[in-house]
Amino acid sequence: MNFDISLETFQQARARIAPYTRHTPILPLPPLKDDLPSSLRLKLENLQVTGSFKPRGVFNTLLQLTPEQRERGVIAASGGNHGVALAYAANRLGMPAIVYLPATASEDRVARVKVWGAQVIQHGGVWDEAHTKAVEHANAAGLTYVHPFDAGATLAGQGTLGLELLDDLPDMGCVLIAIGGGGLIAGMACAIKRLKPDVHIIGVEPVGAASMKLSADAGHLVELSETRTIADTLAPRAVSEWTLNLTQRYVDEIVLVNDAQMIDAMRWLWLECNQLVEPSGAAVIAALRAGLVDVSSYRYPVALICGGNAAADTVWETYETSARAKGSLE
Amino acid sequence: MNFDISLETFQQARARIAPYTRHTPILPLPPLKDDLPSSLRLKLENLQVTGSFKPRGVFNTLLQLTPEQRERGVIAASGGNHGVALAYAANRLGMPAIVYLPATASEDRVARVKVWGAQVIQHGGVWDEAHTKAVEHANAAGLTYVHPFDAGATLAGQGTLGLELLDDLPDMGCVLIAIGGGGLIAGMACAIKRLKPDVHIIGVEPVGAASMKLSADAGHLVELSETRTIADTLAPRAVSEWTLNLTQRYVDEIVLVNDAQMIDAMRWLWLECNQLVEPSGAAVIAALRAGLVDVSSYRYPVALICGGNAAADTVWETYETSARAKGSLE
Repeated sequence: MNFDISLETFQQARARIAPYTRHTPILPLPPLKDDLPSSLRLKLENLQVTGSFKPRGVFNTLLQLTPEQRERGVIAASGGNHGVALAYAANRLGMPAIVYLPATASEDRVARVKVWGAQVIQHGGVWDEAHTKAVEHANAAGLTYVHPFDAGATLAGQGTLGLELLDDLPDMGCVLIAIGGGGLIAGMACAIKRLKPDVHIIGVEPVGAASMKLSADAGHLVELSETRTIADTLAPRAVSEWTLNLTQRYVDEIVLVNDAQMIDAMRWLWLECNQLVEPSGAAVIAALRAGLVDVSSYRYPVALICGGNAAADTVWETYETSARAKGSLE
Repeated sequence: MNFDISLETFQQARARIAPYTRHTPILPLPPLKDDLPSSLRLKLENLQVTGSFKPRGVFNTLLQLTPEQRERGVIAASGGNHGVALAYAANRLGMPAIVYLPATASEDRVARVKVWGAQVIQHGGVWDEAHTKAVEHANAAGLTYVHPFDAGATLAGQGTLGLELLDDLPDMGCVLIAIGGGGLIAGMACAIKRLKPDVHIIGVEPVGAASMKLSADAGHLVELSETRTIADTLAPRAVSEWTLNLTQRYVDEIVLVNDAQMIDAMRWLWLECNQLVEPSGAAVIAALRAGLVDVSSYRYPVALICGGNAAADTVWETYETSARAKGSLE
């Protein structure tokens, strides 16, 4: 099978999804951040609609469906962000949507999907189990299954972020990208290297869900027996042949971060940049802060902040408690 | 006294502070937000360095000090954000800084000032008490007191945000701005109306600290006996003659929001826009969501998100607890 994706495919995807997605901002770091190089730029893809990069792949898929497929509806399994993106895009394009989430998905993740009118079904302990069930459901009901990473339209959509980055920073020397199922890094790396083969591409994966690193090292797809990380959107038990193949060809190195490093990076992003993000969105900062990669020799290294949907309910509780104590809540 | 500020003064301030501050991004809302007009634009000044608009006024002040003044150092009293900005700017420009905070200032506010090397002194229950003490300290020690709102250089610096907004959105029809001491709205309103007198300017103040609204209604400065709101950065007991005068001339209306409305707006900004902000930063959204103002007739109404420094420590605790339960923290 030919896993490759042409530059034209990425460019067409970009034009297709443009009316529905945001060109997200680049944040330069202020000086005084002596712990990270001041040349570092953050691509705030957590400011994408629905709070992650996922709508890029989803819109690119849904906008190519036939009228019959649109009418029957779409279905997906998701660790969270892909499901929100599917629900949002289906709502905007006027088609029914069903989202399978693991039974372990947090309340805020379920709420973010439901708010767009999608039907939520919780099944299994991890994404892979929800996925198997959702595919069965899709086949039985004649629905279009929208895979979060193992599909050409998804990969082409995620790759649009690579083109956008090169427009933002033509001199970008390297970019750090988190790895879950590998759809984001495979699409982006392929798109970027079509235009600028010299850009150094670094993948960052949780040590507790290192499905891509272990597969790349082994030279074939490795399925983990279990995953263990708070970065729930980076934790499928296996990547796909497709994302592995593109990663092997276009990604220069992969480093592993642990949960403590991701929490430290979340705190850093909040205190230094006022961006609250989920663990997966902070993984690339974790790799830099822990000294796992040295980007100081590159011109304009970019940390891609891929998603922001953290569990923040305790913040409102803090302020409600404070207002109640002041007698100013009502 | 002539309280007015010329366009040239604002323009000079803008050029002066440009190397030290960010041109912050504008965030268009995605469709489907049927509770707020989709023409609304958010100016994300919470992405300014130190997480609020305050460095604009502070840098404009510090950059005009004499070498002798720089050497002796600067001092301020702050509800939080002005102090962080002073500490940051003094650090960058290499001068000593002292920041008075109310004894009631939360831990995270104290930490954000200390991290830039400023000396923190906590005094009094509200900003006004810390202010009185800090002015005494400044006079006794020969330090330059940097007032958060009652000073020309501060007002000119905050006004640069008005010029920046008009560059971002020349067709801006109206803008909502939160009111604490009034420095932000006075500076911005004056700057904007110099260039576009037709822009409708709406102030938003906490009902529990309505010092500007009460003063504007009375026609003279009114001092509150107490304030009661979680929006600690909007809660001085009195505005100043200067900010009142400019507000009377250049602000078209003032509406009041309560704490519950601000918490609702914080949640909305987080869930819809992935921006975690403090109550003061959400006040303008609170006014819109509560239906206190109708901006639907204006082209490109702007909600100025003036500050982001919320108390978010509980978020890290949530993730640490989760990682500990998974056995993946260490």
